[in-house]
Amino acid sequence: MNYHINDLPERVFKPRNSGITMVMDKGLSVRQAQDLVEVGHPYIDMIKLGWATSAVTPTLTEKLKVYKDGGIKVYFGGTLFEAMIVRNQFDDYCRILDQYQLDYAEVSDGSITIEHDVKCDYISRLSKQITVISEVGSKDVQKVFAPYKWINLMQAELDAGAWKVIAEARESGNVGIYRDSGEVRQGLVDEILTRIPEEKIIWEAPQKTQQVWFIKLIGANVSLGNIAPADIIPLETLRLGLRSDTFEHFLKQDQSI
Amino acid sequence: MNYHINDLPERVFKPRNSGITMVMDKGLSVRQAQDLVEVGHPYIDMIKLGWATSAVTPTLTEKLKVYKDGGIKVYFGGTLFEAMIVRNQFDDYCRILDQYQLDYAEVSDGSITIEHDVKCDYISRLSKQITVISEVGSKDVQKVFAPYKWINLMQAELDAGAWKVIAEARESGNVGIYRDSGEVRQGLVDEILTRIPEEKIIWEAPQKTQQVWFIKLIGANVSLGNIAPADIIPLETLRLGLRSDTFEHFLKQDQSI
Amino acid sequence: MNYHINDLPERVFKPRNSGITMVMDKGLSVRQAQDLVEVGHPYIDMIKLGWATSAVTPTLTEKLKVYKDGGIKVYFGGTLFEAMIVRNQFDDYCRILDQYQLDYAEVSDGSITIEHDVKCDYISRLSKQITVISEVGSKDVQKVFAPYKWINLMQAELDAGAWKVIAEARESGNVGIYRDSGEVRQGLVDEILTRIPEEKIIWEAPQKTQQVWFIKLIGANVSLGNIAPADIIPLETLRLGLRSDTFEHFLKQDQSI
Repeated sequence: MNYHINDLPERVFKPRNSGITMVMDKGLSVRQAQDLVEVGHPYIDMIKLGWATSAVTPTLTEKLKVYKDGGIKVYFGGTLFEAMIVRNQFDDYCRILDQYQLDYAEVSDGSITIEHDVKCDYISRLSKQITVISEVGSKDVQKVFAPYKWINLMQAELDAGAWKVIAEARESGNVGIYRDSGEVRQGLVDEILTRIPEEKIIWEAPQKTQQVWFIKLIGANVSLGNIAPADIIPLETLRLGLRSDTFEHFLKQDQSI
Repeated sequence: MNYHINDLPERVFKPRNSGITMVMDKGLSVRQAQDLVEVGHPYIDMIKLGWATSAVTPTLTEKLKVYKDGGIKVYFGGTLFEAMIVRNQFDDYCRILDQYQLDYAEVSDGSITIEHDVKCDYISRLSKQITVISEVGSKDVQKVFAPYKWINLMQAELDAGAWKVIAEARESGNVGIYRDSGEVRQGLVDEILTRIPEEKIIWEAPQKTQQVWFIKLIGANVSLGNIAPADIIPLETLRLGLRSDTFEHFLKQDQSI
Repeated sequence: MNYHINDLPERVFKPRNSGITMVMDKGLSVRQAQDLVEVGHPYIDMIKLGWATSAVTPTLTEKLKVYKDGGIKVYFGGTLFEAMIVRNQFDDYCRILDQYQLDYAEVSDGSITIEHDVKCDYISRLSKQITVISEVGSKDVQKVFAPYKWINLMQAELDAGAWKVIAEARESGNVGIYRDSGEVRQGLVDEILTRIPEEKIIWEAPQKTQQVWFIKLIGANVSLGNIAPADIIPLETLRLGLRSDTFEHFLKQDQSI
């Protein structure tokens, strides 16, 4: 903080297990990555190079070094895993994880259909090599799971060795835990939270209204993902009640508004 | 202008009292601020570091220097004022204005509810220390004022010492002078303009359709605020009739289209 | 490609006549232009400085040099042509093309109304000096042409000397070949393709859903325009079936999903 404001919610500092912010990089240049680190290094825990953008980014190695030097963990989006699995290239995929010295591997099935046992087997095998984040929820607007299904999938993936599970929303924030309109499936989230520990979940929340909703539900230290690079400072103000949307939520009783 | 085009509307040059462009910076890096100055220095009069983003921006002092060296005035968003007032930190707030040698202070009540006398008293006290810009209109979609109320509030704040008043729209442009959909409350604006001098008002107009609407109503030299950094060049072309949306508006009678 | 993924669609390499990507620059700084070249040089064929933004961009000459050195062709948007034609400044316009050593001239009538013979005459005269790209379709939401009219206009402009024709969509993607909602006028596109060779057309497709639609219709090597700088890497992944939206489209029969 550049100056002191009384009675702000307490943020957990890095390295942290809750209050995580995951940013999505969908094709930044090396210099844009440096800018992101300058502005966001205290707030960003991990950066996902969205889907398979890492395949076609010309200055990939330099960019990964910028994030690593900035104290931010990096991984490649789950769609890359899926693209290689469906082509019988799992061994190639494992080599890529090594070659780029990634911090995490994301196992997802948002674009492919595989038996859940098979998905969990991949999680299990990969978790012996690297920390695994698994993603639950389809990228297909049509595929809507009942809450008990979400809970079963999440629990099975954590049991298989996933460090955390990500609740799918895409870059656009209109599938998975959200309706087509971007609105949160509130009942679904409430029910998930009765069974899965909150600190095991990263909620993809690319839109401001979604970030606000989760901060009001869970607090300043909710773990949120798919944050756009330009939204990292705005998100931190939302977490602290320093933007209109969450301003009142964090005020004390005796602070009149 | 890089080359001459006949019969363009005349723009007032900096320093100017009308035709002001206020840009919102919601978390730019130092280098992004330099880029903004490179592209926008002839067009940008002032930059607002949105709401309380200044509290959590790591390289704040360097960035403020970039804007100052670029000949652009800077101030912190009104939500910071509100966050400190509600915590009884008015003296701390005044020290922050000094410490960062800001050009303006914004006094607003978009997120808090205070008596208008109290707001005007803050304007009056601050105007002895610094140039005050006051903001009228709630950030709450539900709170809609009648036109006479807008006029009374604006006049009282100018009387209390505000240099200019800002008509609220948020970063998103869907409250205050706009409907939920982003559409301008045309009758409201017309009525305000019958009583408040046009050059005393900065209209927040983050969306292109809103900028177009005000340029058509008031002309190339209307004062507009909450412009996104990437929209500074597009806005200047709108002011000059060099983009489709205002192209016809500025043509002379004998120029056939 | 940073690593090998089996069975991807084959992309044509630069310099190419199909599979062209045209990016719209609406006011980038010199450094932002360098960043765009770093990330996009293998993918971007041409950059349009949107409408008349080139008139008010302070560091225009330096920026043009960045693109030229990066192996990317540059031109100024058609609205500049229109703004000068309507002011009887055609000779001045020709001098600007020379002065900035532009690669193409865009001839359009999106904001003005001229006889089509006159438009074709401009195409014809300019094509003796420079490679001409002509744009078909109004920027006016109200002006909707029947398919046979689109075909006649396109054919006449190609006959007059245009190298390629651009199907209008604006920066926003809601006019011309698109409905107000941004949805493609499918029947129109199908009918155009029965008469105009596909490689003569660049489809303006600023929105992701529009890019996906054309890639599914025509393939990885469709020519697309008005791509935002930040979308250049995402677009390349769409072309290759490496993002969810086109993932399944490019899979082979024996690749289960």
